[in-house]
Amino acid sequence: MNHDNNVTKDLNIGIAGLGNVGEGVINLLQENSELIEKKLQKKITIKGISAKNKGKQRNCNIDSYTWYENPLELARSKEIDVFIELIGGEDGIALEVTQTAIESGKHVITANKAMIANHGNFLIELAEKNKTLLLFEAAVAGGIPIVKLLKESLSSNSITKIYGILNGTCNYILSSMENNSIGFDASLKEAQRLGYAEADPSFDVGGFDAAHKLSILSSLAFGTTIDFSSIHIEGIEKISLDDIQAAKENGYKIRLLGISEKKLSGIRQYVEPCLVSDKSLISSIDGVNNAIVVDGNFVGEITISGLGAGSNPTASSVVADIFDVANNSTVSNLGMPIHRMKDFKITEEVIDNNQYYIRMLLPNIAGSIANVTKSMADHNISLSAINQRSDGKNNTNDYASVTIVTDVTTNISVNKVLDQIAKNGQVKGLPTIIKIQQT
Amino acid sequence: MNHDNNVTKDLNIGIAGLGNVGEGVINLLQENSELIEKKLQKKITIKGISAKNKGKQRNCNIDSYTWYENPLELARSKEIDVFIELIGGEDGIALEVTQTAIESGKHVITANKAMIANHGNFLIELAEKNKTLLLFEAAVAGGIPIVKLLKESLSSNSITKIYGILNGTCNYILSSMENNSIGFDASLKEAQRLGYAEADPSFDVGGFDAAHKLSILSSLAFGTTIDFSSIHIEGIEKISLDDIQAAKENGYKIRLLGISEKKLSGIRQYVEPCLVSDKSLISSIDGVNNAIVVDGNFVGEITISGLGAGSNPTASSVVADIFDVANNSTVSNLGMPIHRMKDFKITEEVIDNNQYYIRMLLPNIAGSIANVTKSMADHNISLSAINQRSDGKNNTNDYASVTIVTDVTTNISVNKVLDQIAKNGQVKGLPTIIKIQQT
Repeated sequence: MNHDNNVTKDLNIGIAGLGNVGEGVINLLQENSELIEKKLQKKITIKGISAKNKGKQRNCNIDSYTWYENPLELARSKEIDVFIELIGGEDGIALEVTQTAIESGKHVITANKAMIANHGNFLIELAEKNKTLLLFEAAVAGGIPIVKLLKESLSSNSITKIYGILNGTCNYILSSMENNSIGFDASLKEAQRLGYAEADPSFDVGGFDAAHKLSILSSLAFGTTIDFSSIHIEGIEKISLDDIQAAKENGYKIRLLGISEKKLSGIRQYVEPCLVSDKSLISSIDGVNNAIVVDGNFVGEITISGLGAGSNPTASSVVADIFDVANNSTVSNLGMPIHRMKDFKITEEVIDNNQYYIRMLLPNIAGSIANVTKSMADHNISLSAINQRSDGKNNTNDYASVTIVTDVTTNISVNKVLDQIAKNGQVKGLPTIIKIQQT
Repeated sequence: MNHDNNVTKDLNIGIAGLGNVGEGVINLLQENSELIEKKLQKKITIKGISAKNKGKQRNCNIDSYTWYENPLELARSKEIDVFIELIGGEDGIALEVTQTAIESGKHVITANKAMIANHGNFLIELAEKNKTLLLFEAAVAGGIPIVKLLKESLSSNSITKIYGILNGTCNYILSSMENNSIGFDASLKEAQRLGYAEADPSFDVGGFDAAHKLSILSSLAFGTTIDFSSIHIEGIEKISLDDIQAAKENGYKIRLLGISEKKLSGIRQYVEPCLVSDKSLISSIDGVNNAIVVDGNFVGEITISGLGAGSNPTASSVVADIFDVANNSTVSNLGMPIHRMKDFKITEEVIDNNQYYIRMLLPNIAGSIANVTKSMADHNISLSAINQRSDGKNNTNDYASVTIVTDVTTNISVNKVLDQIAKNGQVKGLPTIIKIQQT
């Protein structure tokens, strides 16, 4: 891509949206201005800002900037080279200002994962037509520069798999359950108290936020257009302290992973809680941190981790994108021109070879475990570990919590066994099944 | 930087040196050629190759390439835009061809850490004068794209500290001692058998290779010119199985770290074995892997890990640099023009606040530990743990191996205590002192 609007002089930017991230960007540009000018040999000047409420108390000083009541006006302003969209939200005003800025020939930088996940293909095509950059490092994993890593540093590799911890809220909840031996509800409440979870946490704990990010990573890794809708999503609501402890006893931790892998027939994308070996790098990622593992055919496995959210780390990614504009980057927005990307094709391979963790409530009567193990043997599933817990809150006088770790088998065999057990009326409620991810 | 020699058409390259890395580069360019052309919208064409021995059996197919007996001729050739130096060696022919290529207006890509550590400032100044790129992603940590991460993604951050595991040989030896309970010599021998250590391992185990890489990282992180000579270097030869096991009992692992940190009066660079918490991310880096932790004032801590050596991972980094040339990167070779960099200033701060691990041989007589602990108390050093091992090969009838973990104190106090103990003739040989690195 050769831009008509290369920036040879100082760079003038406009910022719409002054929440946490917007404040961080302004603080970074102010605090590190000397360093930035030395690096770029250009000044970055904030020529205009816009937000809902001008009078609001803010954690940054905006006194010297021109205020725009209407962000659309800022998006069109001849004063700016770069428009920074930090309003948020999948569509509505965020989408409108982004589109307007691109059509006005501005480079656009955004932290808006929902918008890119849902409208990225359209916006990037529009940006290519207008010869502008549309950059979104801050949309995936906060301060971790995974977008540029995939788009540039690892770009010559054929990627076979990318996976990671993409949601800090879930990771905080799971690692706090593990470290403090508390249940899901208590851990969520603690996360809310600390500001790591929203009052309505369903978007995070349900896996949707991780899925937004995964859709962007898939596209960058595999050269496919962005396809959020095909992601299989499971959240962490079903994970109990029992699961965490049974996993621990067997040498595992539970992490919510977003995984995208290349199969012969297409790409498979899913977000779900997984068991990972407690010796693996990914299992050592605690609290609100994020981590991503990329497996390339020459580079091997690269793992990158850091703060996946927060004002300052996310601001670092926004400003990294400003640097790319200032350096007149010619790299395509998704690593290659969108017309050269494949349309996303969901794999039809449904057979999954894995070890599985299964927890179920079985009647406290002679032979009930024998029935289950017999059924497993009938389906050629061999067991790696089995444990019946005599205490634990899920146990009643009539039922015992039984956890099983299988050897490698298929999802199909596991489902057949569980169907059979359910039919025989031997199990109470739905068993919890968690994949053991090879890491 | 605006180049006079922007590449708008296909990119023609010459490769000098066809060892492991050269073979990997040729294999990558061949195997992933379709992907590469799709990403770059340019072809990368190998227009010439040169190595010592044309007839040598190689792990790549070079039949279709023009052979240059003299790499200097390739460096000057009008056929190429980019010269790739993979000959190796601090100076000699590698330095000569690099200089010639730059003076002939070629972009140069190198994997040669020794050359960049020792002659980087000169070569980069020369490249800037000739408006060419001099890129060296492959010179630091194999496949890990840490150079670009510092130069671009984290460039707006003021870095306070960068440290990491920069030598796969040492990390292999230390983690194998730990995992297999074998001594240094046995572990080294195993590493040599597996090809992870040279016949003469002193360059790796002595810490010099890690120091070469650290000097480059320091420069990128802190905006100082490269200064290899000021690095304080200690190797891992002094580490015994006793140390590894005593560390383990206290919740630590031993890793050879390269560390560069900003102090008020300058930058401090050192390579030395350190104790790191066995709960830390860096402690989970096993075998020949490398890992680097960067601490920036906005991004916080970013950790990146992967294969730190080997044909294919290093080739991935060389080709990443080719991508930067093909994309007409305008980023300065060290992240900012060399005339804007500070000359390296070694800090004069010699007081170090740390916990320390100390192992010493004390006489097997009543009161000898009491004397040591009394001396520590006199110097206000409080102890976190103390252990006398009754077995272990370092014990004789007359002496016992005693390991101590101190609370936070200064290097000065520790040295005073050890001087005093030595003066009193209470200790056999030199105590081993290892810093506990906060991770």
